[in-house]
Amino acid sequence: MYRNILKNTRDNGTLVHCITNYVTVNDCANALLAIGASPVMADDINEVEEVISLCNSLVINIGTLNKRTIESMFNASKKANELNKPIILDPVGFGATKLRNDTILWLLQYSKISVLKGNISEIKSLIMNNNTTKGVDANPLDLVTEENLENNIEILKELARELSIIIVVTGAIDIVTDGDKTFVIRNGSQEIGLITGTGCMLGCILGAFVGENQEDVVTATAVAVAYMGVCGELAAKEKLGIASLKRNLIDKLNLLTYDEFEENINMEVL
Amino acid sequence: MYRNILKNTRDNGTLVHCITNYVTVNDCANALLAIGASPVMADDINEVEEVISLCNSLVINIGTLNKRTIESMFNASKKANELNKPIILDPVGFGATKLRNDTILWLLQYSKISVLKGNISEIKSLIMNNNTTKGVDANPLDLVTEENLENNIEILKELARELSIIIVVTGAIDIVTDGDKTFVIRNGSQEIGLITGTGCMLGCILGAFVGENQEDVVTATAVAVAYMGVCGELAAKEKLGIASLKRNLIDKLNLLTYDEFEENINMEVL
Amino acid sequence: MYRNILKNTRDNGTLVHCITNYVTVNDCANALLAIGASPVMADDINEVEEVISLCNSLVINIGTLNKRTIESMFNASKKANELNKPIILDPVGFGATKLRNDTILWLLQYSKISVLKGNISEIKSLIMNNNTTKGVDANPLDLVTEENLENNIEILKELARELSIIIVVTGAIDIVTDGDKTFVIRNGSQEIGLITGTGCMLGCILGAFVGENQEDVVTATAVAVAYMGVCGELAAKEKLGIASLKRNLIDKLNLLTYDEFEENINMEVL
Repeated sequence: MYRNILKNTRDNGTLVHCITNYVTVNDCANALLAIGASPVMADDINEVEEVISLCNSLVINIGTLNKRTIESMFNASKKANELNKPIILDPVGFGATKLRNDTILWLLQYSKISVLKGNISEIKSLIMNNNTTKGVDANPLDLVTEENLENNIEILKELARELSIIIVVTGAIDIVTDGDKTFVIRNGSQEIGLITGTGCMLGCILGAFVGENQEDVVTATAVAVAYMGVCGELAAKEKLGIASLKRNLIDKLNLLTYDEFEENINMEVL
Repeated sequence: MYRNILKNTRDNGTLVHCITNYVTVNDCANALLAIGASPVMADDINEVEEVISLCNSLVINIGTLNKRTIESMFNASKKANELNKPIILDPVGFGATKLRNDTILWLLQYSKISVLKGNISEIKSLIMNNNTTKGVDANPLDLVTEENLENNIEILKELARELSIIIVVTGAIDIVTDGDKTFVIRNGSQEIGLITGTGCMLGCILGAFVGENQEDVVTATAVAVAYMGVCGELAAKEKLGIASLKRNLIDKLNLLTYDEFEENINMEVL
Repeated sequence: MYRNILKNTRDNGTLVHCITNYVTVNDCANALLAIGASPVMADDINEVEEVISLCNSLVINIGTLNKRTIESMFNASKKANELNKPIILDPVGFGATKLRNDTILWLLQYSKISVLKGNISEIKSLIMNNNTTKGVDANPLDLVTEENLENNIEILKELARELSIIIVVTGAIDIVTDGDKTFVIRNGSQEIGLITGTGCMLGCILGAFVGENQEDVVTATAVAVAYMGVCGELAAKEKLGIASLKRNLIDKLNLLTYDEFEENINMEVL
C-alpha cells in the first residue's frame, strides 16, 4: 500500500502550486521534479487563483514572507478551499515574529488546512499562541525522544483534533497524526538536518503526495515523511560536506527504488 | 564560423542584464559565468534603465513575475530598444494566467524583441492569443517530432515573419527560425529536461550569444541552442539523479572544448 | 588565537540576520550552516526589527535591492545599532547605479557599520562618491598587486579611519584594515572567483565571525577572510567546472580541520 502511494505520486505528474521562500525555492522545485511532480512557483496576487485552479495542491511556506506575498497566500488559500484542493502549511519560524504568527493564525482560522508541518519549536509556539487550544500547559513539548514520545504524541493528537488538521512534527523521530491514527517514523539522519531547505523540500513533497492520494491523506503524509527520511538516511551514508549531502539527497529523491524504500522504511503505526 | 560565434561569446565578458525569476536565478547566473559572460540581476524600476545601459543585452523571464517587476520589465525593455540592445524574451508559463499573457503581449506590442524562446506549449498559446497572427488554426502545433517537423516549421516561420522576431522552440528537436533561415537542432537529452531551470539558463545564455554576435543574430541564437544541447547531452551520458545532472550540465557549459562542440553538434540549416 | 576565533564561530550556533539578494541566498545560507552558524533570511519591514533582536549580527547585501527591501535595510540597521549588534555591509555593484549609491551612502551616514566588504571596484567607487573622504585622487586604487600593495593599503587605511569602519577589499590579494592594524591575505584561487556568490558568502560568514568575536573585530574579520580563502584554495586544487567547484567550496567550509586551516593560512599582519 505504501508502494501504491509512492507510485501514484511518481507517475501522475502532479502539479504543486508553491508559494514559498526565495532561499530554498530551487531545491524545492528540484525535489518535486525528482519525485515526478511539477512545481509551479507563482506568488502574485493577480495570478495565484488561476494557478491553484490548474494544480493539485497548494503549499504555503512563510520562510521569507512579505506584505505582498501574504496577501497572495490568503487569496490562494481561499481559492484552494473553494476548489477542494488540499493545502500544506509550513510555518517556518513560527514564534519568532508577530508577522509570522499573525499570518499562520489567520490561515488556520480562515482557511481549511490539510497538513501542518513544522519542527518541534514551531509546533510548540503554535500551541502556545492558539487560543482555541485548551489543556496544554505553557511548555508542553520537548524535543521528541524515545522517553517522552508517548506524552508528545498525546499533545499532538489533541492539537490535531482541535484544529481538524494533520500535524507533522519533524526531528530525530518524526510524528504524523490526524488525532486518530498516528505514525512514528525513525528514518533520516542528523547530518541532513544541517542543510538549509530539507524542511521546505519536505513541505513541497507533501504537496505532491497529498495531492495524488486524497483518499487517505494521513497515510500519504506519513509515507512522504518516511520517503524523505529514507532518502536522507541513504544520502548521508558517507561523511560528506553539506553541498555533497544536498546533491546526494536530491539524487536519492530522484532515484530511490521501490525496493530500497521498503527495505529502509522504519515506520510504526499507532 | 560556429566556433567564432562561440569564441566571441566566451572571450568578451559580455554583460547580460537579466530580469528573471527567483527559482532558477542562481543557476542562470552560474550558467552565464560558465560561458565567460557576466550576469547582472537587477529588477528595481529605479535602476533597470541604468543597468541595461551598462550591459550588452536584456533577458526578460516571467517565471515569477509580479506587479513590481512587470513595471521594471516594461521600463527596461523601452530603454533597451532606445539603446539598440537586443532583448531575449522567455515567456515562462505563457497561456497559464492572464497576468502572464498580458505581460508578454504588452512586451511584444510595445517593444522590439529580438528572440522569443519557449517550449511548444508556450509558443502555441502565443499563437492562439496573438490577434495579429492569421491563418493558423486553433490547435496549430504539436510536440515536434520528425513526422510533423515540416508542418511545425512552416507555422513557426509564419509567426516569426508576422512578429519580425526570431523564434526558438525547445523540445526533443529544437527549432530556430527568423522566418527566412531555419535551424533544426537534434542535440540534448530527455533527462536534462527534468531539471528546473534548463530553459531559463538557455534564455540567459541566448542573451550572451546574441549580445556578442549582433551581425548574425539568427545564427548566434541557433549556436547557443546547440551549445546548450551538446552540453546537456554530454552531461547526461551516465544515469544520474537530477542534482548530479545539474552539476554536470553547468560544469560542461564551463569546460566544453571547441572540438567537443564541433564533434557533437547536430544542426541542420534549412 | 586564530584557532580560537574559528572555534568560537563554529561552536556557538551564532544567528546571522541576512537581508540579501535572491541570486545567491541559498549558497549564503548553506555557507553559514557549513561553519556552524544559522542564517535567518527575513526582509519584511514588519519583522526585521524583531529578527535582528534575536540574532548576533546583521548582514546587508544590496545585490538585488528594491524599494521594499531598502526600507527594511534601513530599519534593521537602526535597530541593530540600538542593540549594539554588529553590521556587515556588502555594497554589491556600488558605483553602477544611483539607487545602489544612495542606499550605501545612507547606511554609512545614518548607521554605524562595523565591516564594509567589497571588491576593488566597489571600494573605489565608494571613495569617489564619499564627500567626506579627502586627499584621494579620482583614480585612487588599482587592482591590488604586490607592486601597488603598499600604496593601496595607505588609501584603505585612510578610508577606514575616516569612516571609523573595518574595510575588507577582496581580490587576488585580500586586505583587511581598521586604519590601524592591517592584514594582508594571500589565499584563495582565481577559479573560485568565477562562481557567483563567493563574495556574498564571505559577507555572510563575516557576520558569523564578527558576531561571535566582538572583543577583536578586526582580527575576526581577517580570520574569516583567510578561512574563505583557504577553503577556496583547497576546493580548486583540481581543474573542475564551476558547479563542482561550488560544491567543493561549501563542503570545505563545512569540513576544513583546524590543522588544515593553520597549515594553509597565508596572512601577514602589518
